[in-house]
Amino acid sequence: MIAFGNSKKSDSDSNKDNKSLSDGVINLDQGDPTMFEEYWMKMKDRCTVVIPAWDLMSYFSDTKNVCWFLEPELEKAIKALHGAIGNAATEERYIVVGTGSSQLCQAALFALSSLSEVKPVSIVAAVPYYSTYVEEASYLQSKLYKWEGDARTFDKEGPYIEMVTSPNNPDGTMREPVVNRKEGGKVIHDFAYYWPHYTPITRREDQDLMLFTFSKITGHAGSRIGWALVKDIDVAKKMVQYLTVNSIGVSKESQIRATKILNELTKTCRTQSESFFEYGYEKMNSRWERLREVVDSGDAFTIPNHPQAFCNFFGKTISSAPAFAWLGLKAERDLGSLLKENKVLTRGGDRCGCAKKYVRVSMLSRDDDYDVFLHRLATIKDLKCIEP
Amino acid sequence: MIAFGNSKKSDSDSNKDNKSLSDGVINLDQGDPTMFEEYWMKMKDRCTVVIPAWDLMSYFSDTKNVCWFLEPELEKAIKALHGAIGNAATEERYIVVGTGSSQLCQAALFALSSLSEVKPVSIVAAVPYYSTYVEEASYLQSKLYKWEGDARTFDKEGPYIEMVTSPNNPDGTMREPVVNRKEGGKVIHDFAYYWPHYTPITRREDQDLMLFTFSKITGHAGSRIGWALVKDIDVAKKMVQYLTVNSIGVSKESQIRATKILNELTKTCRTQSESFFEYGYEKMNSRWERLREVVDSGDAFTIPNHPQAFCNFFGKTISSAPAFAWLGLKAERDLGSLLKENKVLTRGGDRCGCAKKYVRVSMLSRDDDYDVFLHRLATIKDLKCIEP
Repeated sequence: MIAFGNSKKSDSDSNKDNKSLSDGVINLDQGDPTMFEEYWMKMKDRCTVVIPAWDLMSYFSDTKNVCWFLEPELEKAIKALHGAIGNAATEERYIVVGTGSSQLCQAALFALSSLSEVKPVSIVAAVPYYSTYVEEASYLQSKLYKWEGDARTFDKEGPYIEMVTSPNNPDGTMREPVVNRKEGGKVIHDFAYYWPHYTPITRREDQDLMLFTFSKITGHAGSRIGWALVKDIDVAKKMVQYLTVNSIGVSKESQIRATKILNELTKTCRTQSESFFEYGYEKMNSRWERLREVVDSGDAFTIPNHPQAFCNFFGKTISSAPAFAWLGLKAERDLGSLLKENKVLTRGGDRCGCAKKYVRVSMLSRDDDYDVFLHRLATIKDLKCIEP
Repeated sequence: MIAFGNSKKSDSDSNKDNKSLSDGVINLDQGDPTMFEEYWMKMKDRCTVVIPAWDLMSYFSDTKNVCWFLEPELEKAIKALHGAIGNAATEERYIVVGTGSSQLCQAALFALSSLSEVKPVSIVAAVPYYSTYVEEASYLQSKLYKWEGDARTFDKEGPYIEMVTSPNNPDGTMREPVVNRKEGGKVIHDFAYYWPHYTPITRREDQDLMLFTFSKITGHAGSRIGWALVKDIDVAKKMVQYLTVNSIGVSKESQIRATKILNELTKTCRTQSESFFEYGYEKMNSRWERLREVVDSGDAFTIPNHPQAFCNFFGKTISSAPAFAWLGLKAERDLGSLLKENKVLTRGGDRCGCAKKYVRVSMLSRDDDYDVFLHRLATIKDLKCIEP
């Protein structure tokens, strides 16, 4: 079930011996955002953090804050970045920091279901959905909530929570809730990818419970920092209760480093030569163009068409360049296995509630791995080895 | 239920205005180990970490390790420290890193109960027990396990997990399992305080599943780093599965910092003038002597007698100097409320499965707070305000 760590060769390993890349296994399963290392290497020591041994020792960051383990400077940095990008409202909201947005998602499930009079609360998401939601909602066999699968076919009575990921993981589409009952429904909006290098920023999101993650903005997955913007104080308090019991807060070192890096994004976001988002968008867009070329040059594969839109941040109409490609086969065949035979690891569509003819491919690997992936994809297409 | 963050004033805050300490609320509830800041300040920039923005970006630390998110250098540092102190065997074991030992304890409950054929598995601990175990085993209402309270009165059939904390939190006693059935029992050994500044190291522990935490060794609670030493690979794999779903691993920044600091402990542990453990023991011992003076000078309070023992690390017979004082009243009265009226926050004995005449008092606060605590305790004793 858990694919992390099962691969024989990571991006990191394969990068070390890129001379032999053409033979190695390429792991595009987890979405490890190592692509962005290049940008941060160019920044040299700009966002280097220095932490003396006597600093950041206490459990507490600010005892007056509902989220007592949130470093005040990180809170400011989060608000400043959302303000500069215009992707989400931060006014009159509680910010809850988590060990990545996975932990926050579970904190939100705990909070919303604890506050529900009827339990278990049904958890749903429209297919194709982020495969990890299934695991997060199921692994502990909680009596508080229960995974009920596809939101589009959901017909159980009683309270429910709909996970809405927009742009969606795995297929990059812009999403709205689909259940929309008058009563008993709560929505967790996962905006991990609602940043201008992935998608046009078309509006300032203003939802009740919004999740964001540091890893998918800047590539710092190893830091495990995410945050939630929460309107209701009771929900925020329950989330903090979860995070207190689960891990007694969140690494201060990671919070300090995230603060420095997010502040740099804000500071440089309007300077074209330095802006991370300009860099990121150019890079993602170029990868998508090359992928479309390979797909369009044959008749074997499908990828979604992402409509263009006016991006309020860039001030122009741009294409989407999602963090994952939702690659499909025209033939009815297990694409994940086919790619695995060709030494490319991806996440099978069945894990996202769909057919095995689809896979989720990370678009965030290092350049070398991405090049080899495209080369292998072209080979599969040319070899016509896609017949059942 | 969750006391973290509910206090009006933290150690950190109160330290900032220590001129007014005699009026402020002293928080000795959580065991925030700020006492050790002083040592690390004296070390100046010895263990300062410097992290450039391009470093530690990947989810992965070592894909060949069962615990794929564990930094290899941290693994080495943990083994070296246990080797130098002689408190635990690390050979033929898997090391699993967690966001503090709280998260690891929950990973262990998940692992052991998932592997049990019969569910729910009963979770027990002998009173007085660490209050957080109750919350950890209960908050998600898992069908995998169920909190069943005091291990001494446990009489349910079926599989069980006994939490054994030694030295015990809250009362500092050395503990062994008490249920000891021939079949169906598993033990999680929490050795958070089995370090020479708290207790004599009398043997090299060699248990199946042992938990340790960075925060209570060196005082770096803000880093949220703990580790488990696990004999059985299936248990280790299940724990890693939990940590993968729960938070996709553990902060790399915290791991890097813990590595540097643990290595320093190992390097200096035999140099009396520099050894953290020498410093820590002197400090803890002096606090306990002063506490005993206050308690012995009146007839109101009780504290446990901790027998002396030969410490293999120090090479001499020493007293225990536990991280918490299990303070009791001779009268039948709510000691937590009495102390709260006197502006000292502690953890009530009822939360540890005992009477309210007992409280758990953190011995790890900053000097100023500890001084004020002793002063207030002496005042209560003198005022004879302890009558019901």
